[in-house]
Amino acid sequence: MEKFKVKAFGTEAADAPLKEISIERREVTPKDVEMDILFCGVCHSDLHTARNDWGGTIYPTVPGHEIVGRVTKIGDAVSKVKVGDLVAVGCLVDSCRECENCKQDLEQYCIPGFTLTYNGPDKYLGTPTYGGYAEKVTVDEHFVLKVPENLDPAGTAPLLCAGITTWSPLKHWKAGPGSNVAVIGLGGLGHMAIKLAKALGAHVTLFSRSPNKEKDALELGADHVVISTDDAQMKQVKGKFDLIIDTVPYVHDVNHYMSTLRVSGTLVLVGFFGNLEEMINTDPLIMGRRAIAGSVIGGIAETQEMLDFCGKHNITADIEIIRMQDINEAYERMLKSDVHYRFVVDMSSLKN
Amino acid sequence: MEKFKVKAFGTEAADAPLKEISIERREVTPKDVEMDILFCGVCHSDLHTARNDWGGTIYPTVPGHEIVGRVTKIGDAVSKVKVGDLVAVGCLVDSCRECENCKQDLEQYCIPGFTLTYNGPDKYLGTPTYGGYAEKVTVDEHFVLKVPENLDPAGTAPLLCAGITTWSPLKHWKAGPGSNVAVIGLGGLGHMAIKLAKALGAHVTLFSRSPNKEKDALELGADHVVISTDDAQMKQVKGKFDLIIDTVPYVHDVNHYMSTLRVSGTLVLVGFFGNLEEMINTDPLIMGRRAIAGSVIGGIAETQEMLDFCGKHNITADIEIIRMQDINEAYERMLKSDVHYRFVVDMSSLKN
Ligand SMILES: [Zn+2]
Ligand SMILES: [Zn+2]
Ligand SMILES: [Zn+2]
Ligand SMILES: [Zn+2]
Repeated sequence: MEKFKVKAFGTEAADAPLKEISIERREVTPKDVEMDILFCGVCHSDLHTARNDWGGTIYPTVPGHEIVGRVTKIGDAVSKVKVGDLVAVGCLVDSCRECENCKQDLEQYCIPGFTLTYNGPDKYLGTPTYGGYAEKVTVDEHFVLKVPENLDPAGTAPLLCAGITTWSPLKHWKAGPGSNVAVIGLGGLGHMAIKLAKALGAHVTLFSRSPNKEKDALELGADHVVISTDDAQMKQVKGKFDLIIDTVPYVHDVNHYMSTLRVSGTLVLVGFFGNLEEMINTDPLIMGRRAIAGSVIGGIAETQEMLDFCGKHNITADIEIIRMQDINEAYERMLKSDVHYRFVVDMSSLKN
Repeated sequence: MEKFKVKAFGTEAADAPLKEISIERREVTPKDVEMDILFCGVCHSDLHTARNDWGGTIYPTVPGHEIVGRVTKIGDAVSKVKVGDLVAVGCLVDSCRECENCKQDLEQYCIPGFTLTYNGPDKYLGTPTYGGYAEKVTVDEHFVLKVPENLDPAGTAPLLCAGITTWSPLKHWKAGPGSNVAVIGLGGLGHMAIKLAKALGAHVTLFSRSPNKEKDALELGADHVVISTDDAQMKQVKGKFDLIIDTVPYVHDVNHYMSTLRVSGTLVLVGFFGNLEEMINTDPLIMGRRAIAGSVIGGIAETQEMLDFCGKHNITADIEIIRMQDINEAYERMLKSDVHYRFVVDMSSLKN
């Protein structure tokens, strides 16, 4: 397999800062698309992988799965995009394409397992996959998204993870005109959930622990903010919501929110992997036919649908653009939630 | 309000056996139906209420909410049934009729609160409501169900709680031809879940901890039995089920079953109130868009739909008929799961 070297930013150990390294990309095969990476969003998963917080990181590792780029080369059999197109790559660069889930455009639930954009098994090179903190990437056209040209490419990058992660449950559980949607947590995921739910026509409420998020939430499009530690406010929204998008990325008690769901309502976890404390109490589930569910990113067709919707409604993430060389400081600020609401790396900084 | 006395079976204290007592019923008001009770099923809730296991029992209490009877008198404005009709009453005898849930035929999720058939607030008499372990009962026609005349009235009684409790989630989550349904637990609820899911056209699996339930389950209509303590068998059904009806009435670990759900599948709790141990792990929820939900009984229209369906398919519960005087022994046997699958009291025994 033909390869070429590109500059990237990665790390060689869990406790080492990210720095410039050299990695290899494959030359395009017939179905491949090669792109210059223009912008790459900075997701919490990037940090967790770099620091091996979940175990399983293979070093060196190059994070980044909110990629916006411009096509520089295509394989002979590529029909989806052409050289010069504005494109994007999200969390997935491959899947089996044959299981019952892949066949239903649910690559995110591929049964034998998908290939993540970084730290996944690269079946072409035999190495781990390397993510978007790099000059270029080569990806099978099936996993390449088309970006509406009217969208700001930097603000578009976070749509590829934070956007689709909230879009998919909003669509699956049918958020739209007449439905009441609540969002727990106002970070990268939460701010996209508010924007997308609002644009879909839902009435949107933010649950927040701190009153000082109210102004920001309303500016993002929320209709209402409920301070979740205020019992009186919680009581006022009892039985109100059809859908709660729970973006909280750490252990938390979902029981607290269940009674705010309407009959047949669902709370969808999108931010936290692990055991839910406290124990789930079944009473509000049973006595209101309520559900606790989960959802991960979205399928490729669905991601394209979201990008097209965002193009039509001119929706992008609220971002802070950084240079690649500033990624380590950005990680520290992310840990303190000191970002509104996503860092995006201007990848031209890597060329200098 | 005009009243009359009837013989009933109840208890005056949590630790006292049930015995014959006298209670009052109201004379029919314009919308009321009075019936002779022919049969009354024996539900675990009866025992828990008699013994005050959940707190809140007001003594004397008369259990029984799986009632089949024949109409003896109707109020002037009653149009639903006539004297002589075979009818039934389930867990509910009233609700607000005005909230958004009642208006959608979801009386079981009435927001200000429904009136349970026993130990609920009887707005007519100012006493607690008294259940079906009695000669007669008077109920508003809205909460009276019509029983298809081809059904065995004794076997029909358990449909009013065990039947509708499993029917409602099977319908809500769309069990039918092409869907794979699993049932956890083979008691009163579980055996009805198997019969109803099968009649709806689903492929039905029983999860059981003991291999000796296999023959019974297959006879009830299950296509397959999985021993839930056998890892190899559990692995074989990984990602298989669209819906799991979990009838287990005690603390148990639902995590064990989550990976057997297909993408977008739901496990519905219908038997256990309280805190679920172990803590819920979110990984199978998120990585498969799976859900843990609950459901309680069903609405009146839905209960009628179920009875009509059972009439058409000639479905009744598998029962053991007892005399009213044997109820205390029956409770003891129920506690040991020594019943296939529901005790039903022949209420004519109370007349002797
Ligand atoms: Zn991400
Ligand atoms: Zn697949
Ligand atoms: Zn019952
Ligand atoms: Zn109501």
